[in-house]
Amino acid sequence: MRPQRANFDYTASTPLLPEVKAAMAEALEEAGNPSSIHEAGRRAKERLERARTQVAALINAKPDEVSFTSCGTESNTWALRGLVSANRRKGNHLIISAIEHPSVSLVARRLELDGARVTILPVDQEGRVSPSDLKAALKPETVLVSIMLANGEVGTIEPIQELAAIAHEQGVAFHTDAVAAAGHVPLDVKALGVDALSVAANQFYGPQGAAALFVREGVRILPLLEGGGQERGGRSGTEATMAIVGMGAAAELSRRDLPGRGERLGALRDRLRDGLTARIEHLRLNGSWSSRLPHNLHMCVEGVPSESLVLGLDQAGIAAGLGSACNSKAMRPSQVLKAMGLTDEQAAGALVLAVGVPTTDEEIDRALEVIPAVVQRLRRVTALTSR
Amino acid sequence: MRPQRANFDYTASTPLLPEVKAAMAEALEEAGNPSSIHEAGRRAKERLERARTQVAALINAKPDEVSFTSCGTESNTWALRGLVSANRRKGNHLIISAIEHPSVSLVARRLELDGARVTILPVDQEGRVSPSDLKAALKPETVLVSIMLANGEVGTIEPIQELAAIAHEQGVAFHTDAVAAAGHVPLDVKALGVDALSVAANQFYGPQGAAALFVREGVRILPLLEGGGQERGGRSGTEATMAIVGMGAAAELSRRDLPGRGERLGALRDRLRDGLTARIEHLRLNGSWSSRLPHNLHMCVEGVPSESLVLGLDQAGIAAGLGSACNSKAMRPSQVLKAMGLTDEQAAGALVLAVGVPTTDEEIDRALEVIPAVVQRLRRVTALTSR
Repeated sequence: MRPQRANFDYTASTPLLPEVKAAMAEALEEAGNPSSIHEAGRRAKERLERARTQVAALINAKPDEVSFTSCGTESNTWALRGLVSANRRKGNHLIISAIEHPSVSLVARRLELDGARVTILPVDQEGRVSPSDLKAALKPETVLVSIMLANGEVGTIEPIQELAAIAHEQGVAFHTDAVAAAGHVPLDVKALGVDALSVAANQFYGPQGAAALFVREGVRILPLLEGGGQERGGRSGTEATMAIVGMGAAAELSRRDLPGRGERLGALRDRLRDGLTARIEHLRLNGSWSSRLPHNLHMCVEGVPSESLVLGLDQAGIAAGLGSACNSKAMRPSQVLKAMGLTDEQAAGALVLAVGVPTTDEEIDRALEVIPAVVQRLRRVTALTSR
Repeated sequence: MRPQRANFDYTASTPLLPEVKAAMAEALEEAGNPSSIHEAGRRAKERLERARTQVAALINAKPDEVSFTSCGTESNTWALRGLVSANRRKGNHLIISAIEHPSVSLVARRLELDGARVTILPVDQEGRVSPSDLKAALKPETVLVSIMLANGEVGTIEPIQELAAIAHEQGVAFHTDAVAAAGHVPLDVKALGVDALSVAANQFYGPQGAAALFVREGVRILPLLEGGGQERGGRSGTEATMAIVGMGAAAELSRRDLPGRGERLGALRDRLRDGLTARIEHLRLNGSWSSRLPHNLHMCVEGVPSESLVLGLDQAGIAAGLGSACNSKAMRPSQVLKAMGLTDEQAAGALVLAVGVPTTDEEIDRALEVIPAVVQRLRRVTALTSR
């Protein structure tokens, strides 16, 4: 008999919740009706606007402030390029942090190659950006600050409200990549005071292929994709209606279930953490514990390479994540851990164990039984081979 | 009893074919299984690569030459920006035609604002670009020619093979927007000799949210979206697996059914054309009749505004398209018709009647009965009100 598997790999992607699946199946059924394109078009439009209202409600925005995109990477790319180009007359300096997702850091790098100046703020050992560092980095020619709301890899939540206020004191626009945070902690763009915010459906139990960018009313941004003028001219291209319908449903569920969802997952995650630290020696927990995504557990297991660990756990029926989420070339050492001051050796044993809505108490039990055994075996092998 | 409707609005979008819907429903079912993310991830990867092979086969490309994007607009934007930036050292001049989709013409305009030089080639009365015009427009600093394979609005197919050969004689890269052509006429990137080619699933009976860019092996292009390094680094962002699966299925059906599909639709379209020209006076047919999309019929009905016509037909149960496809702000006079030399007055009566795979002989009969009556009535009203 095949052993039952337990899933702790919720940072790269989250599975569709049943209600999301049902909403998408209904949209698919309708899209498949070839005899009424005109009417189907009208209904598709209604569904699109309903989803926009649902996503807006999740982050306390107005529906008109939400534009749909195809993925978090597109939202981030649009935010950075669009806000920088819209403010070209004012200046050409932008500020990001050292632990941004590659879709932010690589765009910043590209803008730098095109003549912009980029300041990369450091983070402390917990992965937190310091407000005073931001204050010191702002210049008269700064046009944009982009700092993620939460780091999906190590789980740390940044002090966005404080950071955004500092940027605004100098009249500088503030964008936050909330892709790893949406659906896991309550979000309120008004309370945060941000000008732009990225979210992606597949990180909160919605489908791949739908994401959004919030841009505060009155904030100027140039489009990334121009053409047929969809999304009020902000994002041209035929709308991926079915995925967007799924995103709307997932947003509505997240709004309904938060913060309860976070409390339940936080308790499961804490039991996993406490059990593992009690059973495994030389385990380092990473990220902040005062300001953290409730479902995320990030650790470094001394003396065992990260890849061997993930592979060994997979064979034992535990799906876990490498240190670096969302990155299809994840075999390189994590930039995030390096920015937090870990040596390459320390960072090499990185492991993410995230819980999700489907996680059960039995899965935690199983993890507490299997993971220490796998670590012990791998440490023995590693010690032998490195002699 | 509600009268039966007949659909002739296949230029803006095409409905999902049953086989496409079934493939997507299967992918949705699997994506909804929360207990096996790791394995589901592996299977999703297999499906992605299967779809890539299917799309590659439709255009006679290698799978590795095909990258998935979210929509035709993204494919076109990526092609123009990516090919121009990759050749920045060589020069900064690009050539497009006067009848490109806005996702090409607006990007060219944006590149112009950023310092590029853009030549816009005219078209003749049939909407055809002249090879000798292209030859004359090429300069030593030209880095890209982008001319659409077929115009979705007026139906004209451009002499891409000849145009691409002219560009290549001068070592200039050639991109073609084949969004309106794929699935309607056979496409062969090798025979065409193009370096890059855009297709979008929702134009060939596949879903919204999936499109592709073919880039010939060895051709340098910079990414538009950078981040996690998906699509071999060419297009980062989580893949919209379900839509891509649907695109693959639609591509396979198109490959299987072409050219027969085109022959059948061409016969239906010709019967519609012949019947309408026999029954309606002062009807002008637009576009080329020697080199044309088989499903497209574009006409101008003298003396009746386009919008009134589409509205009147809709009320009479006939779904038709305004002159300008794919454009959500279609109320302005068509740039394509103006480029073909039509006056604003002539262009104002524009109407697209396209047939599709679900079109029946009965729908043609119904159109031949209803459309002349609606035109007659509207002409009477217009004549009265303009006295």
